Amino acid sequence: MAFSKYLRCRLPVLLFVFQGVLLLIFVLFTTYDGHTDAASQPSDVDPAGNQLYAFFSLFQDIQLMLLVGLGLLLAFMKGYGVSAVAYNFLLSNFCMQWALIVQGFIYHYHEGKIHLGLYNLLTAEFATVAVLISAGAILGRTSPIQLLLMAVDIGGSVTVHVFSCYFGLGASIALYRSGLQTGHPKETPSYISDLLSLVGAIFLWVFWPSFVSVLVHPGDGQHRAVLHTWVALSASVLTTFAISSLLEKKGKVSMGHLQNATLAGGVAIGTVADMAINPGGAFLLGILSSLACILGFKYMTPFLANKLRIQDQCGIHNLHGLPGIIGAVAGIATILLVPDEAYGHQLYHKDTGNTETAWKDGLMVDRTTWGLKSWAKWSTWVREEEKFIPSVGL
Amino acid sequence: MAFSKYLRCRLPVLLFVFQGVLLLIFVLFTTYDGHTDAASQPSDVDPAGNQLYAFFSLFQDIQLMLLVGLGLLLAFMKGYGVSAVAYNFLLSNFCMQWALIVQGFIYHYHEGKIHLGLYNLLTAEFATVAVLISAGAILGRTSPIQLLLMAVDIGGSVTVHVFSCYFGLGASIALYRSGLQTGHPKETPSYISDLLSLVGAIFLWVFWPSFVSVLVHPGDGQHRAVLHTWVALSASVLTTFAISSLLEKKGKVSMGHLQNATLAGGVAIGTVADMAINPGGAFLLGILSSLACILGFKYMTPFLANKLRIQDQCGIHNLHGLPGIIGAVAGIATILLVPDEAYGHQLYHKDTGNTETAWKDGLMVDRTTWGLKSWAKWSTWVREEEKFIPSVGL
Amino acid sequence: MAFSKYLRCRLPVLLFVFQGVLLLIFVLFTTYDGHTDAASQPSDVDPAGNQLYAFFSLFQDIQLMLLVGLGLLLAFMKGYGVSAVAYNFLLSNFCMQWALIVQGFIYHYHEGKIHLGLYNLLTAEFATVAVLISAGAILGRTSPIQLLLMAVDIGGSVTVHVFSCYFGLGASIALYRSGLQTGHPKETPSYISDLLSLVGAIFLWVFWPSFVSVLVHPGDGQHRAVLHTWVALSASVLTTFAISSLLEKKGKVSMGHLQNATLAGGVAIGTVADMAINPGGAFLLGILSSLACILGFKYMTPFLANKLRIQDQCGIHNLHGLPGIIGAVAGIATILLVPDEAYGHQLYHKDTGNTETAWKDGLMVDRTTWGLKSWAKWSTWVREEEKFIPSVGL
Repeated sequence: MAFSKYLRCRLPVLLFVFQGVLLLIFVLFTTYDGHTDAASQPSDVDPAGNQLYAFFSLFQDIQLMLLVGLGLLLAFMKGYGVSAVAYNFLLSNFCMQWALIVQGFIYHYHEGKIHLGLYNLLTAEFATVAVLISAGAILGRTSPIQLLLMAVDIGGSVTVHVFSCYFGLGASIALYRSGLQTGHPKETPSYISDLLSLVGAIFLWVFWPSFVSVLVHPGDGQHRAVLHTWVALSASVLTTFAISSLLEKKGKVSMGHLQNATLAGGVAIGTVADMAINPGGAFLLGILSSLACILGFKYMTPFLANKLRIQDQCGIHNLHGLPGIIGAVAGIATILLVPDEAYGHQLYHKDTGNTETAWKDGLMVDRTTWGLKSWAKWSTWVREEEKFIPSVGL
Repeated sequence: MAFSKYLRCRLPVLLFVFQGVLLLIFVLFTTYDGHTDAASQPSDVDPAGNQLYAFFSLFQDIQLMLLVGLGLLLAFMKGYGVSAVAYNFLLSNFCMQWALIVQGFIYHYHEGKIHLGLYNLLTAEFATVAVLISAGAILGRTSPIQLLLMAVDIGGSVTVHVFSCYFGLGASIALYRSGLQTGHPKETPSYISDLLSLVGAIFLWVFWPSFVSVLVHPGDGQHRAVLHTWVALSASVLTTFAISSLLEKKGKVSMGHLQNATLAGGVAIGTVADMAINPGGAFLLGILSSLACILGFKYMTPFLANKLRIQDQCGIHNLHGLPGIIGAVAGIATILLVPDEAYGHQLYHKDTGNTETAWKDGLMVDRTTWGLKSWAKWSTWVREEEKFIPSVGL
Repeated sequence: MAFSKYLRCRLPVLLFVFQGVLLLIFVLFTTYDGHTDAASQPSDVDPAGNQLYAFFSLFQDIQLMLLVGLGLLLAFMKGYGVSAVAYNFLLSNFCMQWALIVQGFIYHYHEGKIHLGLYNLLTAEFATVAVLISAGAILGRTSPIQLLLMAVDIGGSVTVHVFSCYFGLGASIALYRSGLQTGHPKETPSYISDLLSLVGAIFLWVFWPSFVSVLVHPGDGQHRAVLHTWVALSASVLTTFAISSLLEKKGKVSMGHLQNATLAGGVAIGTVADMAINPGGAFLLGILSSLACILGFKYMTPFLANKLRIQDQCGIHNLHGLPGIIGAVAGIATILLVPDEAYGHQLYHKDTGNTETAWKDGLMVDRTTWGLKSWAKWSTWVREEEKFIPSVGL
């Protein structure tokens, strides 16, 4: 109680310091990039060629996913709806500002300045998604500060282990209190929370193709990413209804399954979205990933909670861990099985000067890493959590 | 009761079989079209010219209409909100997958494969809209399977009669039980359902111009379609408030009118959206169609329910039947009255090699058919319903 | 009571007359502009160059802001949610139709016709935003007619004073009844209203960059506007959480602050969005404006209500008045401080043939006016309100 109050009083202080430091950094160290700087435009510039037009509507789609979709999805607990939407709003802004600066210093810093444009906002948005997903695991057991502590790891793509460290500090220590398994009194879902949460899931579902395709090469690659993602998501929806009504009592479809497993195909497709897997491959991935997700909810989450004392509040392991593994396997299989001819003469020339073999090896490493990462994140977190349980569970 | 349980147990089986068959078809019979196939791109392809960029944001708009807008709109019955949103989600995916395959085999099948891209998703989306609208007629009286049975007719544009047959089997037989007129206990609307349903209607209203214009020729034709649709929809809104507050007790605007008649202008404009009807013509259509829609609700729906025993749960006849007729008449009138000069030298050359007269005749048939179809669909359904009533109503 | 009933009975009459007159005007006086008129397209026109594609997705974004975002935001009072969304829907359509005609006769009337296209819808949308914001001030104390009376001033940018006159007539006379300060019984907020209102605020927040950037020159200027707006809005979010949890009891963040102050940065940035203020300048504006907004809510609104008898129901002074002043000051400061070189060789050539000094003077006047206007609107309204209070407050 006192600890909780201590944290709460510190929220304004933390935010003031953070905003003060960021104001300094923004004023001293940021400037425009080549697409936002008026002075560097040639006199015959074509305004329609500005990078803004390649990304803006997709950026807005993902903002809607993050703030409305994920916000409403997290509103599934009655009595926590407003807080979930509000903290999701705070946390995503906190993360994006932090990611803008960290990614800026690492990747966009030259001549003493971070060079900013919409592309930076977009990559910051992606880093934020990872943190918001993790937040789902501990929802309803956290104060704002605890959520913010989770946001510090969004620098790049190799920071998984650093993440787990902060996560362990920020989440496990503060949260794993004895008696928690009995459930928080506010956690009872209500009818209207379910409805809004389902609408949130549908927002995520609708804009998922934007999310998957936005960083893919423009042209046919991006087109394939949209097609595959839709096909996989759609197969996930029907599979979810089928399996959930089979497993649940009286044939009623579980709201939890509906809010998660319908998105599993979108998670799994991430590794191979622009590759030549054919629509049939996307369909298969959609079916397998939602199947894995629901079985995870039904059998694995209770096992983890009862035997390993890991409470995965929103089932992130089921939605991100298992489909992530499926995606990684699909990535390896696709690279090994799909002949190079399927890509025509494009992939070799565009942004690699490498020989064919080197390119293929690089791609394999790249895609496998991508797929394994969501699993790795969860897995490392589990190990950290276990490490901290003894000292906290007392 | 036993019958209902029988149906419910069969939902997983139906969905498993459907997904199994579709997986086979997707794996064996689908491949990429010219815009998604990497191998067929020339080495000097302009990525920005990919068809993806002409359709993607409009496709997303219509997804939002279907899943969030229509989903929330159907949530108007308290206690059915979650089910309505969830089944709308299931049904639209079922329909789109089915339409992808049926339309694929009919229109996009060559060299042993269905060739898929975003354009196919878009036309499948349109077929789905028709089914979801029909679903509104029997909402709250159906199980998931009954809704899915309605989805089997989405092959093309001449399948209206086949539709009515399946509809008769799927909907009327199963649903028309004696004592139904007294109303289902869960049908009481509540305050928050009304609010969400109105928000759903507004989502539909906002994205209706995308829906009407997406398949229109790019350029000035699409621009006219957007302008006309907005003008007609806006006239419908004010007319709805005016007439509804005139007809209802104490001058209060009816929620049912608000959720339907504000969209009537958008339905009626469909036939003539890109033609040179002038903004004034669109304004007139908006007024007339919402007027017809509200009068239909006030006088025709009770008449149909009491005298002909046809329960049109969501008033689809009022929103789609009557404005459809107005649209058909407008289509004929426009072709007869607007001089050819209004279209400049474009329409004759673009996709018709025909002589002027043949083109005009074809257009007339085309537009009239389009407008009459929504009425025909409802009308045939009525006739089928009547045919089945004797054997079911006992 | 009798007066209120008198008004309510007149709503259908007012709307019928309005729609009748507008139908006449639309039929007799409107035609297509150069982008919607088929006859005026050259035979080698590039459809992709149509103005539609520059504006349509941004237009839809702003429609969503107005109808869903603002609608839900206004739903913050339990028992008024449905009415707020519905009247917001009616009022915005009333305004847009009126603005189309008034702006049409003033700016787009030649050869006996108003020439219409999407650009007209967009500028009408902007005029509507101003009216809907004002409506927030008297929400929950108005009948539909009173709201509509507020919509008559949307002709151009110099009509602020005319506005105040109508506003005084439409709002103050009818509304300022004795005993109003005790609060209306329906004004109690509820949990679910809060949730929906917050979602509405987030819709506004997400699409605010579209709103700010849509009328800015395409290319790097529009890109800067998007970047600045996002940075300012994001700084406002964190500042709002910080200050609100500091000022409120028990460190809980106030819902009212969250729904307003998070948008303050977007209001203030309006004057300088495309200028070379650097991301740091945008960050600073975001912090200052949300700070001013919350302090306004905390100390100024009660003072106005108690001492000056001005009930600013939704706090429009805090969200639009104060950040407007900050924006005006920022506009002046930017023009004085940022060297011309920051704009390269673009701004001088594009749409001004003026000499450098004249251009700079014009810009200064333009931007200062823009920023002062939102404050002026509120301020004039206050003066009008004071003028009418003696004759009404009895």
